[in-house]
Amino acid sequence: MKRIGVADTTFARVDMARYAVRRLQESGTGFRIERATVPGIKDLPVAARRLFQERKVDLCLALGMPGKAEYDKTCAHEASLGLIFAGVLEAKPVVECFVFEGEAEGDRELETLARRRAEEHAENAYALLYRPDALARNAGHGLRQGFRDAGAVRPTR
Amino acid sequence: MKRIGVADTTFARVDMARYAVRRLQESGTGFRIERATVPGIKDLPVAARRLFQERKVDLCLALGMPGKAEYDKTCAHEASLGLIFAGVLEAKPVVECFVFEGEAEGDRELETLARRRAEEHAENAYALLYRPDALARNAGHGLRQGFRDAGAVRPTR
Amino acid sequence: MKRIGVADTTFARVDMARYAVRRLQESGTGFRIERATVPGIKDLPVAARRLFQERKVDLCLALGMPGKAEYDKTCAHEASLGLIFAGVLEAKPVVECFVFEGEAEGDRELETLARRRAEEHAENAYALLYRPDALARNAGHGLRQGFRDAGAVRPTR
Amino acid sequence: MKRIGVADTTFARVDMARYAVRRLQESGTGFRIERATVPGIKDLPVAARRLFQERKVDLCLALGMPGKAEYDKTCAHEASLGLIFAGVLEAKPVVECFVFEGEAEGDRELETLARRRAEEHAENAYALLYRPDALARNAGHGLRQGFRDAGAVRPTR
Amino acid sequence: MKRIGVADTTFARVDMARYAVRRLQESGTGFRIERATVPGIKDLPVAARRLFQERKVDLCLALGMPGKAEYDKTCAHEASLGLIFAGVLEAKPVVECFVFEGEAEGDRELETLARRRAEEHAENAYALLYRPDALARNAGHGLRQGFRDAGAVRPTR
Repeated sequence: MKRIGVADTTFARVDMARYAVRRLQESGTGFRIERATVPGIKDLPVAARRLFQERKVDLCLALGMPGKAEYDKTCAHEASLGLIFAGVLEAKPVVECFVFEGEAEGDRELETLARRRAEEHAENAYALLYRPDALARNAGHGLRQGFRDAGAVRPTR
Repeated sequence: MKRIGVADTTFARVDMARYAVRRLQESGTGFRIERATVPGIKDLPVAARRLFQERKVDLCLALGMPGKAEYDKTCAHEASLGLIFAGVLEAKPVVECFVFEGEAEGDRELETLARRRAEEHAENAYALLYRPDALARNAGHGLRQGFRDAGAVRPTR
Repeated sequence: MKRIGVADTTFARVDMARYAVRRLQESGTGFRIERATVPGIKDLPVAARRLFQERKVDLCLALGMPGKAEYDKTCAHEASLGLIFAGVLEAKPVVECFVFEGEAEGDRELETLARRRAEEHAENAYALLYRPDALARNAGHGLRQGFRDAGAVRPTR
Repeated sequence: MKRIGVADTTFARVDMARYAVRRLQESGTGFRIERATVPGIKDLPVAARRLFQERKVDLCLALGMPGKAEYDKTCAHEASLGLIFAGVLEAKPVVECFVFEGEAEGDRELETLARRRAEEHAENAYALLYRPDALARNAGHGLRQGFRDAGAVRPTR
Repeated sequence: MKRIGVADTTFARVDMARYAVRRLQESGTGFRIERATVPGIKDLPVAARRLFQERKVDLCLALGMPGKAEYDKTCAHEASLGLIFAGVLEAKPVVECFVFEGEAEGDRELETLARRRAEEHAENAYALLYRPDALARNAGHGLRQGFRDAGAVRPTR
């Protein structure tokens, strides 16, 4: 049975993991979810590595919500590099799902954006493990998470 | 018995480690604190790695206070990447607690901010080792360290 | 028989891999292509490492199309560092082929640019594996991918 | 007997290593100094790693003087990340001592600043190896190298 | 017999390797040169690592010419970090020799700058392997490659 790691933060203002887990469970069965909550996004790379090493997950979904300040962008950049570093060391997928607080106007929009992006990255995580063919079929299709798809420049197939 | 590493600097203008250690000791017992003081924040990644390797700590709290200049931001960025790198290599949590001198106006405010942030990151460190369930309960709750919590966008549970 | 990895994304708005694969096949025979499609460019470093480790490719072509926003540049930077990191760890070539959506005006131009760049990077990938002498002959010749060659400052041989 | 590595550059406009070595020798005895001079600051990370591996140093002092141009800042950033990377890999302290040419006005001030900073970082290097208690006593004291100390926000002990 | 790796690109507009190799050969004998040409500067870190691992070079000279655009600076930054990473992993010197197209005005000046810098970095490479004493004698002398030396702030010996 495969295991899917879900790492999130107490810093985020939306419980993105709840939406992600629900969407994972709607997507299929036969896997176990391993959760880890850390304080902030900069703690996610270690959380991911620990999920791989201690709980033997096959993939880690890393959910976070950087704030609005300029410094938060720096933190997100550092966290992203750390997540890539952890994934490459483990040779296992780390699906980063970040929502910047400044991407949405107002709480309602932020909630909606965070929910949608978490759900769509959860679908990506599921596909990476169980449906690589579905990803291959969508290569170059301009898919987006949380916002409307950009779409392919022209039908490619 | 678990061991908690606390690394700090002579560069910082507030003895953040004192506050962090006190809060750790208020939080529980059954752990030993291992201290290391280095000159500046760029020395913290190696200090953390050495605490993991030589003193067998289970987690490292890294405390620092970058200055006000633009260059200090670059140093903090480098230190942060190094701390993430060290944590991922060791697969052990490194809790970064930085206070930028420019975040506060005046010495009194700086002291208060540094104390609060050190205390709240110490609580996070304690929770990572002993209360992962408490962190999980606060997932997506918009918690902050040193400033007032941002709060969840809407009650999530 | 050599194996060539081709990793691409569902985020891209052009199916660059199709053009790259076709050009590889036009370039020669005696190799097998191993494909992997991931959601976005930040997933490419892990995809590359997995192609090296699990499917034993000798080289990985990594195709992606960052969007127009400032943040997309940051993502591309992170992805590039990750690809270099993966390549250095494996000591195997990772040929990055990114087309920024903002490089072209309009869909038609974007399609053309993406096609050409994918084709020319595919030629580079082929040369790295089979024709190192051809690369050596073009050292310092100001070659470009997707745009017109800049050319050598003066004939160098 | 401990060994202290001192790496410096031909790019720097002041012979900082001379000042650092003199101060180390004034600070105590019982160690051997191992020197390595490289062209520029970007060569320092490898120089440090080689001093650790081939000459078995216990700590490396890395001295450099980035120029005034914007590009020199980028080089210094890369060198700093490399030094942290080398130190973390070795789990041995790397004391970076950089003086930016633009920090001082005029040659005399540059010479003085470079000398003082080299001397004070040499003292830090000595303390890291032989006097960790002295560093601990100065935790949070706002110490600076080359300039006047910023001082603690208020007496902390 | 020592081996010197020389890695360069087809992107560069000047055949810098030709000048570097000639200068190496003028500098001394008793070494073998191992060449590798790759498409662009971001391919140099892997090329360097492969020269170390497969062709057992003792040092790698990495020659490249980033273009004039802002994006080229990002690529150069990524390449530089990769070269440092490769060098630190191998614990072998990687001498980076980059000429930014925007550093010179006009083709003739670019050719001259690229030639001089390649030659002087070749001298540095030779000195790192065979004449470490010569580098040590020039510590803090303000040496530059491709442009006039800045010189020491005051005679240091």
